[in-house]
Amino acid sequence: MSSLAQAIRHAAQVNGAKIASRHAGREQTWTEFQTRISCLASGLHSLGICAGGRVACLALNSDRYLEFYYGVAWSGAVFVPVNTRLAPAEISYWLNDSGSTVLFVDETFLPVIDGLRDQLKTIKHLVYMGNGEAPDGCLPYEDVLANSTPVAATTRNGDDLVGIFYTGGTTGRSKGVMLSHRNLTHNVLQALPVIDMTADDVYLHTAPMFHIADAFAMMVATTMGATHVFVPAFEPLQVMQNLQQEKVTCVLLVPTMINILVNHPSLPDYDLSSLRYMLYGASPMPEAVMLKALEALPNAGFIQAYGQTEAAPVITLLGPEYHTTSGPYAGNLTAAGKALAGIDLAILDEQDKPLPTGEVGEICIHGDNVMLGYWNLPDMTAEALRGGWLHTGDGGRLDQDGLLFVVDRVKDMIVSGGENVYSAETEQAIYTHPAVAECAVIGIPHDTWGEQVHAIVRLHEGASATDQQLIDHCKTLIAAFKCPKSVEFRTQPLPLSGAGKILKKDLRAAYWEDQDRNVG
Amino acid sequence: MSSLAQAIRHAAQVNGAKIASRHAGREQTWTEFQTRISCLASGLHSLGICAGGRVACLALNSDRYLEFYYGVAWSGAVFVPVNTRLAPAEISYWLNDSGSTVLFVDETFLPVIDGLRDQLKTIKHLVYMGNGEAPDGCLPYEDVLANSTPVAATTRNGDDLVGIFYTGGTTGRSKGVMLSHRNLTHNVLQALPVIDMTADDVYLHTAPMFHIADAFAMMVATTMGATHVFVPAFEPLQVMQNLQQEKVTCVLLVPTMINILVNHPSLPDYDLSSLRYMLYGASPMPEAVMLKALEALPNAGFIQAYGQTEAAPVITLLGPEYHTTSGPYAGNLTAAGKALAGIDLAILDEQDKPLPTGEVGEICIHGDNVMLGYWNLPDMTAEALRGGWLHTGDGGRLDQDGLLFVVDRVKDMIVSGGENVYSAETEQAIYTHPAVAECAVIGIPHDTWGEQVHAIVRLHEGASATDQQLIDHCKTLIAAFKCPKSVEFRTQPLPLSGAGKILKKDLRAAYWEDQDRNVG
Repeated sequence: MSSLAQAIRHAAQVNGAKIASRHAGREQTWTEFQTRISCLASGLHSLGICAGGRVACLALNSDRYLEFYYGVAWSGAVFVPVNTRLAPAEISYWLNDSGSTVLFVDETFLPVIDGLRDQLKTIKHLVYMGNGEAPDGCLPYEDVLANSTPVAATTRNGDDLVGIFYTGGTTGRSKGVMLSHRNLTHNVLQALPVIDMTADDVYLHTAPMFHIADAFAMMVATTMGATHVFVPAFEPLQVMQNLQQEKVTCVLLVPTMINILVNHPSLPDYDLSSLRYMLYGASPMPEAVMLKALEALPNAGFIQAYGQTEAAPVITLLGPEYHTTSGPYAGNLTAAGKALAGIDLAILDEQDKPLPTGEVGEICIHGDNVMLGYWNLPDMTAEALRGGWLHTGDGGRLDQDGLLFVVDRVKDMIVSGGENVYSAETEQAIYTHPAVAECAVIGIPHDTWGEQVHAIVRLHEGASATDQQLIDHCKTLIAAFKCPKSVEFRTQPLPLSGAGKILKKDLRAAYWEDQDRNVG
Repeated sequence: MSSLAQAIRHAAQVNGAKIASRHAGREQTWTEFQTRISCLASGLHSLGICAGGRVACLALNSDRYLEFYYGVAWSGAVFVPVNTRLAPAEISYWLNDSGSTVLFVDETFLPVIDGLRDQLKTIKHLVYMGNGEAPDGCLPYEDVLANSTPVAATTRNGDDLVGIFYTGGTTGRSKGVMLSHRNLTHNVLQALPVIDMTADDVYLHTAPMFHIADAFAMMVATTMGATHVFVPAFEPLQVMQNLQQEKVTCVLLVPTMINILVNHPSLPDYDLSSLRYMLYGASPMPEAVMLKALEALPNAGFIQAYGQTEAAPVITLLGPEYHTTSGPYAGNLTAAGKALAGIDLAILDEQDKPLPTGEVGEICIHGDNVMLGYWNLPDMTAEALRGGWLHTGDGGRLDQDGLLFVVDRVKDMIVSGGENVYSAETEQAIYTHPAVAECAVIGIPHDTWGEQVHAIVRLHEGASATDQQLIDHCKTLIAAFKCPKSVEFRTQPLPLSGAGKILKKDLRAAYWEDQDRNVG
């Protein structure tokens, strides 16, 4: 049976004496790691967690976040990693919707939770995973482990739910993507022929660990018995220091972070020659940035990942051989890569019929990595998985070599600094302002963040509002990164399609002329 | 959904223009291959094959054998590859037991089938896959394809049966091991981190394609879109010619074949520098042969595989880094390797309780690669899979690094020249001779074949028989490779255990003193 717990038993068996994680003066082997997470699982059982129960985490990156994932999986329960950039109302929605009864939280986010206590309807226990003394009302992390005796992993079926990863929704409501043990372990095996990590690799967590991109890389590293090291959050100097000091061999970054690193004045001061692999994805990578990165980090094999949470998460990888400006593989830097082994990828038309090579349609897949469904949303699940295909909502085309080019997001998602922003969610927030008659939110080009959230607004006759007033209004409702950065006012109605939908394609066109919006 | 058909769709999508197979003047790309097997599947449907139907093959290696495997899988049916070294009575048992209704056969084995026609109860169609005109009563292979229109693969569940591989049985009866799409595709993904084949590799089929070892390597090569080339059967000069001419990068051999190759006087005449990987397994590898091989083929990365049909088939791999006589990995040439990712491997005692590191017990596993069961043998299935573990019947121990050492075969299987001989089956044959009172069959050391089938016999009082008479008698009943090569006569009863079983361990001891019987 494929399970996340099995990956730990395997690492302890074949790489037991190797270092599993090193952080903040703490270090443990894979054998020790297995003992600790089996104690953590036992501790969770004593907090009332049963098979299928939900356990959430709201924290910056650390070795304890790694233990959280595997301890929960070992206990037979379901992990719910929470986005650290959410507005408080969104956090409480995620926790309540998932029915999480235990929440792991660190010092950074404890104040947010303290402010939300009245609204959290299902949380029974807070486990304090930060440094220093646990505050009143919180269980100290190490006590949960120390007071428990190790237990064997709860044996569950490979198709059982192990994680709920929330994603923004086009309707403005977050959806909980349900992933099984098999979804996650299978996607790791599917990707390993391209990302050939070994037990000798050192993986630095720089992207946030709540995000499935880092969680995926975490599972790849764990499956191979590699070593995990951590920065709490992306800070370029700290990242470069860690890369050098820990002789890091593999890292995952969003293009924005790569852009910051390769343009950083201190880059030449650090020895980053240990880097074997640099994974990136989740937003458009400007070709100029890629060329600069190839020059700045000539030893690092770049690998682009395209995927989505619903695919657990990787669909295609563009291997290091394509990250070149010469030879037979050159000219494909804007491609998203090829479908992983075991993934059927098809470009379907609006009637779900396959399109010929080269034509643009919706990117659809099936494979053992495709999610179980959306938590408590059977209709949306049926819609996303209709006909046995996962409909990604992204538009793309295949070339004759099977390279995927992502050309548009059917669902109008904006990707800004590696974060997904669903335009409908931002639009709903803007629409709640009394002066707003009509609005559309689109992504416009931004040198650093790839895309910037841009609102086009028509006010009611006689009403008035400034751009800053609208932005401030949004910030009371949704996370800052989802709010518009710029607002354009119009006096004429926005252009509509025959079906009465705003023609965002037309609105975007003016901004994207001469820009390559291919994304990976 | 994981399926063998999916692997072909994937190869056609991402490596469509690359060469899939080259043999006997024929050559095809993966796109062409997909078209051909979808026509073959269509042809099978018109021969009455439905989902779950059985289609057998009895032939030497060729590109058509490759098409057979994938064409049958594409059709939704079940392939039954037949051992080419069986006695006619065994062939008819396999075909009848599996209920195969279509048999693919080549010129080499058509005479055997002609002689068996009265005994084949379920075969309705013979497809002639050899060269030249199809004889009377046979459908020409190319006609089956040419008269069909390509069909989409029959979509089945990943847990559906796709292959029955027969294996000798301790009770003397062959058992059909039922493997699912998921079993086979998953084992390929599990092995790929060690066997990192790519689309640029060229795999030469030297081991017989009916055997799961070669079928496994075939599926690895196919999954990665590599190129298949073939020799009909192992013949050292032909193998060396092909290795050089086709610039072969990967090959799978049993130790006996490696021994023959590295000691061949013509070896220095060939340029074998293209060889990247040499997979071996299935029988004991004498350390002296390994050392000679390392010297003769310094560029080839040796990979030892340990497994069994019931595990679809690979359980452990010993990577190239261990094939060395110096450095930190040295001293482990007799190890079988480490459990693949996704495989739980435990050493269990007679009560199925795990034993501490270093102690010898039965090698047991679980994982998505473990067989569905034995065809029509629910009791033996329940016994082999009791407690959720596949009981391999092999004895072994793990060291502190998770390296597996196989130390004995609990089921008394003899491995001679890469073929499994189940002593009980040979014993049953000997016992049918009227002069025999008691017998035990064991493996004794043999320089070329690893082990030799040896019989220890006590005759009835007053009866007489020569060793040659007993051997000839066996040959009328079972395949030649299963018959004793030597016979030792005793006048005293054979030593018995408390439970009344012959103490084969004691019988073997005299022959195996000072011999390393560790096997991979």
